[in-house]
Amino acid sequence: MAQKPSIPKGTRDFSPAEMSRRNYIFDTIREVYALYGFEQIETPAMENLSTLMGKYGEEGDKLLFKILNSGDFMRGVKSEEVGTPALAAQLCEKGLRYDLTVPFARYVVQHRDELTLPFRRYQIQSVWRADRPQKGRYREFYQCDADIVGSDSLLNEVELMLMVNEVFRRLGIRVCIKINNRKILSGIAEVIGQADKIVDITVAIDKLDKIGLDNVNAELAEAGIPEDAISKLQPIIKLSGSNEDKLRTIREVLSESETGLKGVDEVTYVLQQYSTLTTGGSEDGNASSQLELDLTLARGLNYYTGCIFEVKALDVEIGSITGGGRYDNLTGIFGMPGLSGVGISFGADRIYDVLNQLDLYPKTIATTTELLFVNFGEAESAYALTALAACRKAGIHAEIYPDAAKMKKQMQYANARNIPYVALAGENEIAQGVFTLKDMQSGQQQLLGTSELINAITKK
Amino acid sequence: MAQKPSIPKGTRDFSPAEMSRRNYIFDTIREVYALYGFEQIETPAMENLSTLMGKYGEEGDKLLFKILNSGDFMRGVKSEEVGTPALAAQLCEKGLRYDLTVPFARYVVQHRDELTLPFRRYQIQSVWRADRPQKGRYREFYQCDADIVGSDSLLNEVELMLMVNEVFRRLGIRVCIKINNRKILSGIAEVIGQADKIVDITVAIDKLDKIGLDNVNAELAEAGIPEDAISKLQPIIKLSGSNEDKLRTIREVLSESETGLKGVDEVTYVLQQYSTLTTGGSEDGNASSQLELDLTLARGLNYYTGCIFEVKALDVEIGSITGGGRYDNLTGIFGMPGLSGVGISFGADRIYDVLNQLDLYPKTIATTTELLFVNFGEAESAYALTALAACRKAGIHAEIYPDAAKMKKQMQYANARNIPYVALAGENEIAQGVFTLKDMQSGQQQLLGTSELINAITKK
Repeated sequence: MAQKPSIPKGTRDFSPAEMSRRNYIFDTIREVYALYGFEQIETPAMENLSTLMGKYGEEGDKLLFKILNSGDFMRGVKSEEVGTPALAAQLCEKGLRYDLTVPFARYVVQHRDELTLPFRRYQIQSVWRADRPQKGRYREFYQCDADIVGSDSLLNEVELMLMVNEVFRRLGIRVCIKINNRKILSGIAEVIGQADKIVDITVAIDKLDKIGLDNVNAELAEAGIPEDAISKLQPIIKLSGSNEDKLRTIREVLSESETGLKGVDEVTYVLQQYSTLTTGGSEDGNASSQLELDLTLARGLNYYTGCIFEVKALDVEIGSITGGGRYDNLTGIFGMPGLSGVGISFGADRIYDVLNQLDLYPKTIATTTELLFVNFGEAESAYALTALAACRKAGIHAEIYPDAAKMKKQMQYANARNIPYVALAGENEIAQGVFTLKDMQSGQQQLLGTSELINAITKK
Repeated sequence: MAQKPSIPKGTRDFSPAEMSRRNYIFDTIREVYALYGFEQIETPAMENLSTLMGKYGEEGDKLLFKILNSGDFMRGVKSEEVGTPALAAQLCEKGLRYDLTVPFARYVVQHRDELTLPFRRYQIQSVWRADRPQKGRYREFYQCDADIVGSDSLLNEVELMLMVNEVFRRLGIRVCIKINNRKILSGIAEVIGQADKIVDITVAIDKLDKIGLDNVNAELAEAGIPEDAISKLQPIIKLSGSNEDKLRTIREVLSESETGLKGVDEVTYVLQQYSTLTTGGSEDGNASSQLELDLTLARGLNYYTGCIFEVKALDVEIGSITGGGRYDNLTGIFGMPGLSGVGISFGADRIYDVLNQLDLYPKTIATTTELLFVNFGEAESAYALTALAACRKAGIHAEIYPDAAKMKKQMQYANARNIPYVALAGENEIAQGVFTLKDMQSGQQQLLGTSELINAITKK
């Protein structure tokens, strides 16, 4: 036999068992999005390369999957261009989407005349990146984004936090939601007299968890931050205590920075509203997620202009499983300035890993077919088919084994598929107008008419 | 302002209203697939080009979207290869999937050790074709396939027909399911002494609807079919009457062809089982779909080996909206011979067009947000947020307008979004602990406490 076929590295097939688990995650996110009034859109897998290029930095441009033009793709290419980096742009007009944010910005601008603002949209689709594949990093993966554009009200931030809390409450994952604010970071850089070094500062302190304080300070010095400025930063980096403690301290530190104080006010409002609205959320046994002010949180700093969020799972060692923030100029790159928005993105693949590690999937999602009719031959299957139709009419996921194969083989099939009930009807059952219903877990058997059989399965 | 951005020709954005309608179709198909015991898989958008090339004929190879290799894609390309058709294969290792059948065949072979046969799988994903875009033909579109592999029982054909019937019954589309059998077509070619001309014969008679009998006969003559053979074909092409009449006639015509009679037996069995099992299906007012033997139906002839299906909408002039059939060697191309299967594919885009033309969407699917809380300012919104949380807890899709904008603007937003209920609370309502609930359709207003408000909306 020929060699087994394979798929491109960094891509995956999803088996029925994996699909059940993935759909459970996607359905949960989708339901919560809908509950909060978000509307779904979809955009094409392929965008014009001009839409994508230059939006993700130089590194991002390299990671775009480009699609070879159809037909005579070499037409118009001059021989001296062959072998130059610019050739790709000649050969390819289209690329696969790299995230859902840029296509969404493009969508808002392209359809602005049809949209009612504020626009609460969600989008759950694949994205593609020509990254080096490694454990937990794929070249094709899903993103689950929700954004509100056309409103700079902080209520939107509160809504997103509530939504994050609700998704993880439903999934049963204990999380800590971390929050920070770009304006606080700007204020910090300002008060230590290093406003122009904000990127270096935040990149360095963002690594605190990974590399420790000494290395952060070394990196700051290397970036040319003077010693007195670094020492002014120390109380901020090491800031601990409750959110209220932190806010009190940082408000003092930033008392001279208008921008910084604005950031503190924003975070204070979001924290207060969130805690007011989630108090009492524990009545069904699930405590609400903590919301923790973390001044070292930066994420894609140049992108965000206000609140920044990140979600960490408490019981599994894994990177952030959700992130997002406020941006003030999403659509400016497409010629429509001044539109503010705020969004979050659930990392479905990491959430999948967390649920797997904690074994948190509900038992019910594994079941597909609930009832298998055994096939003993033409007369018997004709008898079974009528009952099969009645079962399906009652909403029972059911099938009949298509061939009159050996009993053992059919039972093995039921076991391999995790089918909980099997119905058998041979000569005796047919004469009595009944089926033998076997509970595959307990091994119990009962003689039942079709409607009793339906009751026995649906009442379970 | 810069020029509006656009998307590649032949691709589409889907707005929230379009997504609701599309999801209604996909959910209906998915539910019926699950009811019949089919399990979902997904495969990557990108396959190795070696998996795809040569599987769709020469024309198909040209219509594959190819993905430029990452990094130095010109490395190893010799200068004399530049400008040759073989260059694409050097530049691209991967392509976008063209249908769901070849990736499924690849999946079955690659995962054969994990699979339990017979395998009932369904798959609902996009496919991409570099076809010339035109009305109703896109470069990116969804396919919704269900196949049973590893069993040659005709019960599978019956199951698929029942499933087709159930999907269109649920969607409210009146259809005719046409059935034919490759073995009957072979038998016909055989008995008129033209077994080697089967492709020409079926291609010609497949056009009967479009070009009429005279042109079909002219085409047959042009293909080198002798006059006496053409005249023998006439009663078969013109065959009419009930399925029973047609079967009786064709059984006589094919009495000398073993293959042909096998095909007649197969169709007879499927028709009988289907009609037995769908009798009584009209109790909820929906007559079952007709199943009509159509000897001119051929579809992708070289591919199918047994029954062939096609579904036509009765009330809209449009091409086939579903198709499928039996194939005996799906996985042979990947080195795993002898695996028989049968499948169907729903054409979601055409079904969408049919539902639009007949305006058959249920009213409920248009609603996303059910209730909007008007925002009158910080104190009022704080009051509303608690009720909002209670509404969501009760499962009501609800939101609050994020800004304290003018009343008129907020009501316009509710209207544009088709939100059926609006809740308002100013000073008076807050003092009384109630909301004014406005029914946007009737204009009626009531003063209600939060739990009464929830009851008023959920009982509707």
